[in-house]
Amino acid sequence: MAFQGKNVLVTGGAGFIGSNLARTLVEGGAHVTLVDSLVPEYGGNLFNLEDVRDRVRLNISDVRDEHSMKVLVRGQDYLFNLAGQTSHMDSMTDPYTDLEINARAQLSILEACRHFNPGIRVVFASTRQIYGRPDYLPVDEKHPLRPTDVNGINKMAGEWYHVLYHNVYGIRCCALRLTNTFGPRMRIRDARQTFLGVWIRAAIEDRPFEVWGGEQLRDLMYVDDCVDAMLAAASDERAAGKVYNLGAKPVVSLRELAELVVDVAGQGSFAVREFPADRRKIDIGDYYSDASLIEAELGVRQRVDLRDALLRTVAYFREHLPHYV
Amino acid sequence: MAFQGKNVLVTGGAGFIGSNLARTLVEGGAHVTLVDSLVPEYGGNLFNLEDVRDRVRLNISDVRDEHSMKVLVRGQDYLFNLAGQTSHMDSMTDPYTDLEINARAQLSILEACRHFNPGIRVVFASTRQIYGRPDYLPVDEKHPLRPTDVNGINKMAGEWYHVLYHNVYGIRCCALRLTNTFGPRMRIRDARQTFLGVWIRAAIEDRPFEVWGGEQLRDLMYVDDCVDAMLAAASDERAAGKVYNLGAKPVVSLRELAELVVDVAGQGSFAVREFPADRRKIDIGDYYSDASLIEAELGVRQRVDLRDALLRTVAYFREHLPHYV
Repeated sequence: MAFQGKNVLVTGGAGFIGSNLARTLVEGGAHVTLVDSLVPEYGGNLFNLEDVRDRVRLNISDVRDEHSMKVLVRGQDYLFNLAGQTSHMDSMTDPYTDLEINARAQLSILEACRHFNPGIRVVFASTRQIYGRPDYLPVDEKHPLRPTDVNGINKMAGEWYHVLYHNVYGIRCCALRLTNTFGPRMRIRDARQTFLGVWIRAAIEDRPFEVWGGEQLRDLMYVDDCVDAMLAAASDERAAGKVYNLGAKPVVSLRELAELVVDVAGQGSFAVREFPADRRKIDIGDYYSDASLIEAELGVRQRVDLRDALLRTVAYFREHLPHYV
Repeated sequence: MAFQGKNVLVTGGAGFIGSNLARTLVEGGAHVTLVDSLVPEYGGNLFNLEDVRDRVRLNISDVRDEHSMKVLVRGQDYLFNLAGQTSHMDSMTDPYTDLEINARAQLSILEACRHFNPGIRVVFASTRQIYGRPDYLPVDEKHPLRPTDVNGINKMAGEWYHVLYHNVYGIRCCALRLTNTFGPRMRIRDARQTFLGVWIRAAIEDRPFEVWGGEQLRDLMYVDDCVDAMLAAASDERAAGKVYNLGAKPVVSLRELAELVVDVAGQGSFAVREFPADRRKIDIGDYYSDASLIEAELGVRQRVDLRDALLRTVAYFREHLPHYV
């Protein structure tokens, strides 16, 4: 395992993807430092680290705190840069906070790497949101970037800083444009991270949930497959300076996905509703990724199918529900 | 004239383009308020307003001061949003300041418009820099955006906020992607605004100047033509939510341009030098614009040819040199 004995820093490390990644890294023998602000509205949750608590170092700080980042990046072999503000709606009501986290903090993290650890390898969690409403499907990396909300614009800037710091300063950054990602340890309290969390919570609480629209197509990626891709992007020299889509199969409509959630949970129900007006304005319609580039270049393959992924996710949250609601 | 009796706010109003625009607006009977920070490294220069001083209101404040912007946008019919940090090199040495001016301040200006004056019309000065190194020439608006420096990334974010605030909140914003612009009142003290300022200064001081590379192609736009395009973008309903390239003819190599400067000035000389290493990394190679979209949609036409534009520029700086060096 490429990370045996390596020093690895994960921003957003107590969050959904960060905590799943941390577990895999620890199992692979890495020395893992997690940075998380534990801001209640974001993804950080101490319970996410319950079973690895003694095998990671948790540093409570905010990526906006550039002084702490200057210290934390030193001596690290890898940085998985996952901390972000993920809510599209929050970015519209408070665009400054989104800018500070998704753009300014990214700059200061990269400045810290440039000045104090230029040999580090960085994987940045970007998002398919920066494509906006697709011109064609599936969306590949050549698709124009046309973000439809403040979050998308700031994430786009954050991604470009990473590419730039590779091109100009030689820092080995790779950006992955995540599609909808789900699994154990995601935020299910509200839709700030993903709508699917809210659905799964409702299903296992045997409550009805709402599906807006219903016909929009999406691809949904299980977190373990996302972690695999991140590890590949970090350890493969060919990934330096690159931007890759992540994607998963099958493509489903939101209505089909809702049916699958109810079926897998054996509980719950849903109603299809019209899109609320404020969401309609920033909605992107159908989206699914062409992930063939990362498959071809880094050999990344999907391992978990959608139904199995939902089963594992439902089982996790049934067991640990009180820690997530 | 569409601006007769209208209230017009110009950010960067004591700067190069802003002061030329202000003069045209005042002559057209507008009530003009200019906002400028007069930060010495930027384009603001009180002498730029010498002959219109009594006919404009100059408000000294920084676009980063969101409180002053909240007050200043009220009651305005038009906003020409020109304030920016323009130096590519400064954006690499101090990326935060570039972010604060070119991204964050743009957000706060748009937030001020949204909350206090949603009926305003906004023209934003974007830049061809956001295209990065062209895939094809001339570059039209469909060309992918691939900025090669921090300045380009932040300007791209600033431009997108304008498009977004149109799409989501209905604010009638139009972004113009300026190409190299020159003329009276530009900064000639250094290359922070344009290399051409440094050349023209050297020529009229009868000193040699350096041309880096020499074979790169560029289009150069005279400031009066740029002002024409801005006025058209502000007054034409069809411009709302649009992004347009500005461009000019002829396309010239830097060497040809340098020869023309020396010829027009009747003084000075130049030497072609290799590109300095730090600039090479963020240089974009050849660039010239396809401006046919704004020509077709808004009827904008170039009025001043390159030689005549250089003659006027040289004449201006000969007369007023002490105020610019």
